Amino acid sequence: MPHINVDKNLPGIRALMAFSPETAAALSVFTNLLLRTDEGLTMAERELIATHVSNLNNCFYCEHSHGAIAACYLDGNADLVEQVTQNYAEAAISEKLKALLSIAGSVQKGGKFVTTKQVDAAKSLGATDKDIHDTVLIAAAFCMYNRYVDGLAADTPTDLSSYSLRAQQIAEKGYGTHIFTTKQPVANNKEA
Amino acid sequence: MPHINVDKNLPGIRALMAFSPETAAALSVFTNLLLRTDEGLTMAERELIATHVSNLNNCFYCEHSHGAIAACYLDGNADLVEQVTQNYAEAAISEKLKALLSIAGSVQKGGKFVTTKQVDAAKSLGATDKDIHDTVLIAAAFCMYNRYVDGLAADTPTDLSSYSLRAQQIAEKGYGTHIFTTKQPVANNKEA
Repeated sequence: MPHINVDKNLPGIRALMAFSPETAAALSVFTNLLLRTDEGLTMAERELIATHVSNLNNCFYCEHSHGAIAACYLDGNADLVEQVTQNYAEAAISEKLKALLSIAGSVQKGGKFVTTKQVDAAKSLGATDKDIHDTVLIAAAFCMYNRYVDGLAADTPTDLSSYSLRAQQIAEKGYGTHIFTTKQPVANNKEA
Repeated sequence: MPHINVDKNLPGIRALMAFSPETAAALSVFTNLLLRTDEGLTMAERELIATHVSNLNNCFYCEHSHGAIAACYLDGNADLVEQVTQNYAEAAISEKLKALLSIAGSVQKGGKFVTTKQVDAAKSLGATDKDIHDTVLIAAAFCMYNRYVDGLAADTPTDLSSYSLRAQQIAEKGYGTHIFTTKQPVANNKEA
């Protein structure tokens, strides 16, 4: 049960965003800028970084929300998303993305865990300054979103099909204010 | 030295925001909404929560930036800010704020560390749902900002007087886009 009185018809972060629509609107603009662009990193790569960090933070809602969005951008290849969360070093992704996921994993522990060696390795594999910047900011942002969801114990649907449905909407329309105004039943909740 | 090529004339997060002005503008709007209001929690209380979390994350730049802003709102009482970062349980602050700082400390570890007992304790001391929401979101946001600054090894001035000067500007004008366009020399840097 959420720690505060939020709309029970909205799952996960969407209930929190409806509770606080002004900060939600600003965060939606930020999230669109950070995740909805193929400049440098692709949208799929950005969502995989978000999914990896959410998995490390053990945030079921964010991991499965963003994993499902990544799968949409990967022509439905949910198996590849699972490879990344299970063991990205062996996943069928580029060496550059593996180097960036390593940096993201360090950010998840804390900013000072990122080493010059990790950054140099990513650069040697073709990562630009913008790629490194965006990787660090995406990883940092999901350390916020994961804590926002679980810190308020937002309701988290366990039915994975609900994540796919929502993911298709976001893959089509982006992270707009519709995120927290479109109601969707919360089925099979578990405490986050 | 920062991990990416940023403007060496800007300290801390400001160099990163100049590198990525679009995400910076969205984050400034978000930060103003979250920290520049006295609705429920005062601006001083919000900055103390930000300072406490930044201290726990060992982010020198954010701790001293936001500690200095808190002091501005507290009529220059930097001693009270230090009491909070050293041992808030003994600080000359309200019991309600102590309960909220306890929640913020749990968020810093991870969202799932927040307990119903902590939330109930804060509510029994007068915290509203909005106070709890804002505390969790401020703490979560600083888990992002701290990682953004240290994950990219942004330059961090060690001269504390520079933080006071900047704090006065923010206390007067808020977190606007001027944050990353007003240049200020980086003196006495250390690696973050």
